[in-house]
Amino acid sequence: MKLASLKNGTRDGQLIVVSRDLSQAVTVTEIASTLQQALDNWRIVRPALDTVYQQLNDNVLADTFGFVESACESPLPRAFHWADGSAYVNHVELVRKARGAEMPESFWSDPLIYQGGSDCFLPPHDPIPMASTDWGIDFEAEIAVVTDDVPMGVATKDADNHIHLLMLVNDVSLRNLIPGELAKGFGFYQSKPSSSFSPVAITPDELGDHWQKSKVLRPLTSHLNNALFGEPDAGTDMTFNFAELVAHAAKTRPLCAGTIIGSGTVSNYDRSAGSSCIAEKRMLETVAEGKPTTPFMNFGDTIRIEMFDTAGRSIFGAIEQTVIPFPQE
Amino acid sequence: MKLASLKNGTRDGQLIVVSRDLSQAVTVTEIASTLQQALDNWRIVRPALDTVYQQLNDNVLADTFGFVESACESPLPRAFHWADGSAYVNHVELVRKARGAEMPESFWSDPLIYQGGSDCFLPPHDPIPMASTDWGIDFEAEIAVVTDDVPMGVATKDADNHIHLLMLVNDVSLRNLIPGELAKGFGFYQSKPSSSFSPVAITPDELGDHWQKSKVLRPLTSHLNNALFGEPDAGTDMTFNFAELVAHAAKTRPLCAGTIIGSGTVSNYDRSAGSSCIAEKRMLETVAEGKPTTPFMNFGDTIRIEMFDTAGRSIFGAIEQTVIPFPQE
Repeated sequence: MKLASLKNGTRDGQLIVVSRDLSQAVTVTEIASTLQQALDNWRIVRPALDTVYQQLNDNVLADTFGFVESACESPLPRAFHWADGSAYVNHVELVRKARGAEMPESFWSDPLIYQGGSDCFLPPHDPIPMASTDWGIDFEAEIAVVTDDVPMGVATKDADNHIHLLMLVNDVSLRNLIPGELAKGFGFYQSKPSSSFSPVAITPDELGDHWQKSKVLRPLTSHLNNALFGEPDAGTDMTFNFAELVAHAAKTRPLCAGTIIGSGTVSNYDRSAGSSCIAEKRMLETVAEGKPTTPFMNFGDTIRIEMFDTAGRSIFGAIEQTVIPFPQE
Repeated sequence: MKLASLKNGTRDGQLIVVSRDLSQAVTVTEIASTLQQALDNWRIVRPALDTVYQQLNDNVLADTFGFVESACESPLPRAFHWADGSAYVNHVELVRKARGAEMPESFWSDPLIYQGGSDCFLPPHDPIPMASTDWGIDFEAEIAVVTDDVPMGVATKDADNHIHLLMLVNDVSLRNLIPGELAKGFGFYQSKPSSSFSPVAITPDELGDHWQKSKVLRPLTSHLNNALFGEPDAGTDMTFNFAELVAHAAKTRPLCAGTIIGSGTVSNYDRSAGSSCIAEKRMLETVAEGKPTTPFMNFGDTIRIEMFDTAGRSIFGAIEQTVIPFPQE
């Protein structure tokens, strides 16, 4: 099943069911008005949504309309919990290597995770307003899962059962604010402004064999200003799968329905696949040439993040965002 | 005005208006069903709530009922944003001193802040379920503000206008998980489980002259197992006021209505006032005697946090929580 939230002037948007080919959509107000409402009652609501999805794909519904990605909010325009892991540990290892530091061995067994701002996500086709390019504006292409209610202390083997939706993420990062914030010891805050998510959230069964052992086995494609920037495989070199990340997140507290857990920047040891953020490319340049040459994003730069099925069809729709100055002149 | 959220089997509780003396309450479904709803439309809703509050205090309403603190959720049972500062920098300085480290000079001008889990707050009179006392279970008595929508980049001089409610907080902390998490560099996550908030949220005008320059000028009282643990003054030694914390939080992103910003552990240089967390007391013991003697919380221990007006009346109601094992035998 594929779901999205239309912009409708409310804070949480209008839940819609979207056809598999992303061409048509239909509102489901009689089932749930918002995605958070649906997730709050997922076990009751899902069968009804599934029926509508089937009918939509079978082209037997009357009140459908053309699906337009740019009319969408992020599937959850605001969420109660957004925690982002760093599951591609080879990326973390590279970050350390670029600054000449050893990565602790424990990073291979104990997930890194931080909590991000979830109250004001950006819509997937809206610009990224930023006060200064001095902040080192970067994108991070990632995958995220959405859970229902997860009990505190859930076992990893049970955590996969709580994963109900998948989305793509642009975890916007302000690279030049990170060193100062991390040096203070409390983690990211100003350096991680509003993220955005793919227009469409999908149930894992939409991926067929490409969802296995709580991992997505497809490349994640990023284009910067229409040039291919990277297409690393999300199923390769993922040290912690989503079930492990969910269990880690729930160790000392329950998670509320609608919790979003991210994978961190998708990254492969095979560097020929390219990168999912500018920082990684700059680190590779630093390791190879002694200094970075690719600049961070400037005003007017556009990042496009998407994932395709084996026939080349977009699965989630695209995140496509241009950096603009804030406030506007 | 004083507001609370009754437990009613829903995720967000039932918004009620509470009388100034905390004796009576009334539902306001015709105005707003939940506190988040009220905050989403604060400028429209507040005058109507004020009218009900006046009538409730004047004893001219029919459908009132006795107010019971233990029937309450935290005012926002779940929120879209909960960020906690460390505004009492003398406390941070002491933490560093106890482990023989210098605190960077910048901590006096650049606020520390971390983002906490906001999806599952504990009710103020519910127990704190924890899997192990080996985690070093501690309370932190704090004050928090609730904002409406705050634009990105808000100036400190304008930030106070976005503060609409005040609450007390118990920012439960797992002291023995903190060193390992901070060493990983991404800040707190598992070491900061679900917080709880005072039964009642108040508008700042309820404090009269004790709300000045975005600070609360009253002692914050903590009792551990019925023995006074501390009553430092919240208006003394607060290095950053709430307007400064809100402006810091909004530097690179807007804040959604219902954002909660905490003060961090209230702490005074005058140590005779006692402490607002066990960790601080243990650090004072370490500095004075070479080692800590006060243990962290055990199963069965109860923490009570409240604030009184000059006549000794409770302003917010009390947070009163007992640590219990999870899962229960």
